[in-house]
Amino acid sequence: MLTVITYGSFDLFHIGHLKLFRALRAMGGRLVVGVSTDEFNTLKGKQTIIPFEHRIEIVRAIREVDVAFPETSWEQKARDIRTHRADVFAMGEDWRGRFDDLAELCRVVYLPRTRGVSSSALREQLFSPDGKQDLDLLDSVRRQLGD
Amino acid sequence: MLTVITYGSFDLFHIGHLKLFRALRAMGGRLVVGVSTDEFNTLKGKQTIIPFEHRIEIVRAIREVDVAFPETSWEQKARDIRTHRADVFAMGEDWRGRFDDLAELCRVVYLPRTRGVSSSALREQLFSPDGKQDLDLLDSVRRQLGD
Repeated sequence: MLTVITYGSFDLFHIGHLKLFRALRAMGGRLVVGVSTDEFNTLKGKQTIIPFEHRIEIVRAIREVDVAFPETSWEQKARDIRTHRADVFAMGEDWRGRFDDLAELCRVVYLPRTRGVSSSALREQLFSPDGKQDLDLLDSVRRQLGD
Repeated sequence: MLTVITYGSFDLFHIGHLKLFRALRAMGGRLVVGVSTDEFNTLKGKQTIIPFEHRIEIVRAIREVDVAFPETSWEQKARDIRTHRADVFAMGEDWRGRFDDLAELCRVVYLPRTRGVSSSALREQLFSPDGKQDLDLLDSVRRQLGD
């Protein structure tokens, strides 16, 4: 069994988040999720609608999530990978290249976003579902892992 | 073990929904949830931001939920209570009195809403968390059940 680790804000929890969790867990078997705190988001110039305590509580309530913990800084990822014995580090493709240095600790994969499904889009009250995305996402993950 | 049944749209899944599920499951042990379809909501003059297929998928992903099924009409509740062998029928207190006729089939309880946490409020981009609500909610349920 592989342990997969990922990070995010998971604001306005939506189907894109759920499909991401499913794809990651289907790949590994155990899923560990870092949830950005409000303070860390402020540092990143990002603001969520839902406060941290609620966001992490909802992430923890999802069947596919084995462990969720607060993400409070840029520097903690290497430590988290070791603490949670992660085999795979997975982030959205908008971060491509940004975390390649973690490849000395575990596999690093970058995932396509579910088109038309995002917290930003929701925040703008726009929502355009597309049922095919989860398969695309899972395929992409598997390709990157050579599975 | 009691089976509790409830209904709702669960638009923009939030902490109020999760706390409701927890309170209901803590009370019974098994939780069965009817999720209103988009067509049934149209009939009620209600519109959600998130489409039905996504809303029910997220409800099903929550650990506390044992079964979720579509709610497509006003008339199905008596049938659902029998099908799912529900011991308790629970709805928000804004429906007080509306479903008293179901009391011949099972216990009927009406629950207080989590103040300041609602899909409507979220839809208006207003969100005012209050951590005390879940205990109030659970207490109210227990009082109504004489537990």
